[in-house]
Amino acid sequence: MLRLWIASLCFLASVVQAQDVAEISGVVREDVELLIQRGLDDDVAYAFVRGLTTNVGPRLAGSEAEARARSWATRELAELGFANIRTEPFMIPYWSRRVDRARIVSPAPQDLVITALGGSTSTPPGGVEAEVIRFETMRELRAASTDVITGKIVFIDEKMTRTQDGSGYGMAVRKRRNCATTTAEKGGVACLIRSVGTQARRFAHTGMMARSAAVGDGPAAALSPPDAEQLTRLLENGPVQVHLDIQVETQAEAPSGNVIAEVVGRERPEEIVLIGCHLDSWDLGTGAVDDGAGCGIVVGAARLILSLDEAPRRTIRVVLYGAEEVGVLGGRAYAERYADEMGQHILAAESDFGADRVWRFETRFGDGALPYARAIQQMLEPLGIAPGPNSAYGGPDISMLPRLGVPVVSPRQSGWDYFDLHHTPDDTFDKIDQDKLNQNVATYAAFTYLAAEMNWDFRKPAE
Amino acid sequence: MLRLWIASLCFLASVVQAQDVAEISGVVREDVELLIQRGLDDDVAYAFVRGLTTNVGPRLAGSEAEARARSWATRELAELGFANIRTEPFMIPYWSRRVDRARIVSPAPQDLVITALGGSTSTPPGGVEAEVIRFETMRELRAASTDVITGKIVFIDEKMTRTQDGSGYGMAVRKRRNCATTTAEKGGVACLIRSVGTQARRFAHTGMMARSAAVGDGPAAALSPPDAEQLTRLLENGPVQVHLDIQVETQAEAPSGNVIAEVVGRERPEEIVLIGCHLDSWDLGTGAVDDGAGCGIVVGAARLILSLDEAPRRTIRVVLYGAEEVGVLGGRAYAERYADEMGQHILAAESDFGADRVWRFETRFGDGALPYARAIQQMLEPLGIAPGPNSAYGGPDISMLPRLGVPVVSPRQSGWDYFDLHHTPDDTFDKIDQDKLNQNVATYAAFTYLAAEMNWDFRKPAE
Repeated sequence: MLRLWIASLCFLASVVQAQDVAEISGVVREDVELLIQRGLDDDVAYAFVRGLTTNVGPRLAGSEAEARARSWATRELAELGFANIRTEPFMIPYWSRRVDRARIVSPAPQDLVITALGGSTSTPPGGVEAEVIRFETMRELRAASTDVITGKIVFIDEKMTRTQDGSGYGMAVRKRRNCATTTAEKGGVACLIRSVGTQARRFAHTGMMARSAAVGDGPAAALSPPDAEQLTRLLENGPVQVHLDIQVETQAEAPSGNVIAEVVGRERPEEIVLIGCHLDSWDLGTGAVDDGAGCGIVVGAARLILSLDEAPRRTIRVVLYGAEEVGVLGGRAYAERYADEMGQHILAAESDFGADRVWRFETRFGDGALPYARAIQQMLEPLGIAPGPNSAYGGPDISMLPRLGVPVVSPRQSGWDYFDLHHTPDDTFDKIDQDKLNQNVATYAAFTYLAAEMNWDFRKPAE
Repeated sequence: MLRLWIASLCFLASVVQAQDVAEISGVVREDVELLIQRGLDDDVAYAFVRGLTTNVGPRLAGSEAEARARSWATRELAELGFANIRTEPFMIPYWSRRVDRARIVSPAPQDLVITALGGSTSTPPGGVEAEVIRFETMRELRAASTDVITGKIVFIDEKMTRTQDGSGYGMAVRKRRNCATTTAEKGGVACLIRSVGTQARRFAHTGMMARSAAVGDGPAAALSPPDAEQLTRLLENGPVQVHLDIQVETQAEAPSGNVIAEVVGRERPEEIVLIGCHLDSWDLGTGAVDDGAGCGIVVGAARLILSLDEAPRRTIRVVLYGAEEVGVLGGRAYAERYADEMGQHILAAESDFGADRVWRFETRFGDGALPYARAIQQMLEPLGIAPGPNSAYGGPDISMLPRLGVPVVSPRQSGWDYFDLHHTPDDTFDKIDQDKLNQNVATYAAFTYLAAEMNWDFRKPAE
């Protein structure tokens, strides 16, 4: 009984401690409020997405267009007055679609709307024609015997669930990642998946299927949702023969790079607060929500801080990563290049989830640094942002940083509509809502400034 | 003063007369109520659209697919138990797209989402490349001098207004019809229009530009709305060079036909109540809202009447017109073939405006037949349908019938969303809402039965 009483007391004490909020001086508080106010009224972020998606357009990793995006961004960042602007190049394996088309040959000849998955191999020249075998889920395909699959085109009709936090995506991606491999293992000739994504319109959704390589294990493509349903209806009546032609171009090595710009810290310039996004996009749309918006947000936020009378103590480093879509290659290149300087990385964040509002602010800090988390979260409350748990993911290009000891934060955006556009031809500039984008700009400006100005140590362990 | 008094009296008398409602016996009233109830619960119409769009798919006028649609429909109508099923063939000029693609060459190389307009000519093999000149409206293009257009690709960015009654379409179609001709007259090399239609997604909207011929006066294509906006943004910065490649196939003559099925009248089988739709569709989608839905509605409605214990007095003729999209050629063929029997056409209606609910019931009757209009309108009130004016258009394939003295009705469907799908790749079966479709089935069953069962003369002049 005494032990239980002591345990309760300890629990209460820890709750009280977790509620501790670090103090922010009136001057800093005023600066943060000013940044929030200016952020909500910002023009830089919107103009950046507009310019990137219009003047460059689609920018496939390793392509000439991605190189143009680096040049364009470099010029823009210079015009905005950033310091230490540079491109840090690296080489990547290159994949690009040349032809991707499919049609039903029988019983009802008609074209299908498809897109080759990133990393698909080519079919034989002129394409393949085979009967389609449908599976409700990836699991069903795994359970199926080689006999029924050999010589066939596999079709996985698994659907994705719409969620605010995007958690439906991870599950849906499994079929994209594994369909070609499992199909090849079982003797199938190609794989078709129902598009990953939540939209119901006639757009197909691309995305990477290979792992750590330019190409995967076979030809694979995604069907638009209406086409997946059409195929399903036809299969109810009997065998369906499909012709699939995918021709891709690959190169062992192609240039990519990370574009970096800084607001140099006035007291401890060697200490880095990193805010990132990725500059590359899939080739179908113009990469507005994925991830032009993210780049607009971090550039816009850093630019607001740059326009203050005095730079914050620490350096703010904006990183526009290259080659995210094809395996987070820019993030890896960065982590490798700066391996020895991870101790000087105070905090990192990445905006790569569209242009909708932030609804929750998550951290991944040392247990002793929770009062800092709470202080930031309190400053963000007027933006309609709730405090989140201390288990933030960070973002794809900074996903390796927590393992290297770097604290991260995740301003979580609503992903309710994100997968209606993501990786489809419909990811274009007209989808960006400036008011929602600016709520992100205000959020990034606020926490980035606090992290750079305060002497907080986000690694601080529990006492 | 006396004259004014008499005029007032006459006006009042005419109002009273207009409010007269023809009587419907209890037995007929019960049959109509039964048809409405069954219509709201119908399965035939939905299954018909499903089958047509799935088992045939797209069915371009004059194509092998349109011929398959006739065969498929003939079989279905026979299975449903209709009488006098027949195809009435006619020949049409044939146009089909082989290649239609465009890309921005400079300043920012990227593909554009376009679709060749029906009747576009081919560009020279391999395409044309030229500077783009933009006009806000068709009127602006007309006012422009030959000097500024010669050698250029004309781009008309005129937008369409969303309306319930579809009235925005007529205006928007003017640019589609006239762009190539005006461009050619002024020495331009090709014409691009912002897609007709109200959707804002990355779909291009096709449709006929030629008049009474397979091909028009030059190469012409529609840009998806996001692509039109992209082009506009780029043009703000300076010259834009576009490469456009359109290759089409044309034939002087190709087969089309109208498919006809009947419910034979029990007393005066020679008197016809015609309800129609069109069987052909554009090639991009599977023609679900345009006009698979309309065919489902008229077939479903006629099938409900067929299933009554006793056929109505007059014959109900269901006409699935061919080649509507390319110039109402099925409608013209029908009017020609039955020119001598127009006097026996008691009433005609066509369903060709999607699958949304009917909100108003319009007539075009002789002035003495308005009590019949009112009687029908009263029976439709429980379906949420308001009475409409006596100036109905009828529908495209029956548009020539009023001039030949045939009374028509228009059950007006809501067109609020229709032009989001119409003539785009996204016009697919998944867009059909069975409840809304069935409100149409109930409506058509009710007025068609009344017109066939009652001895009403809709031509009746004012007394």
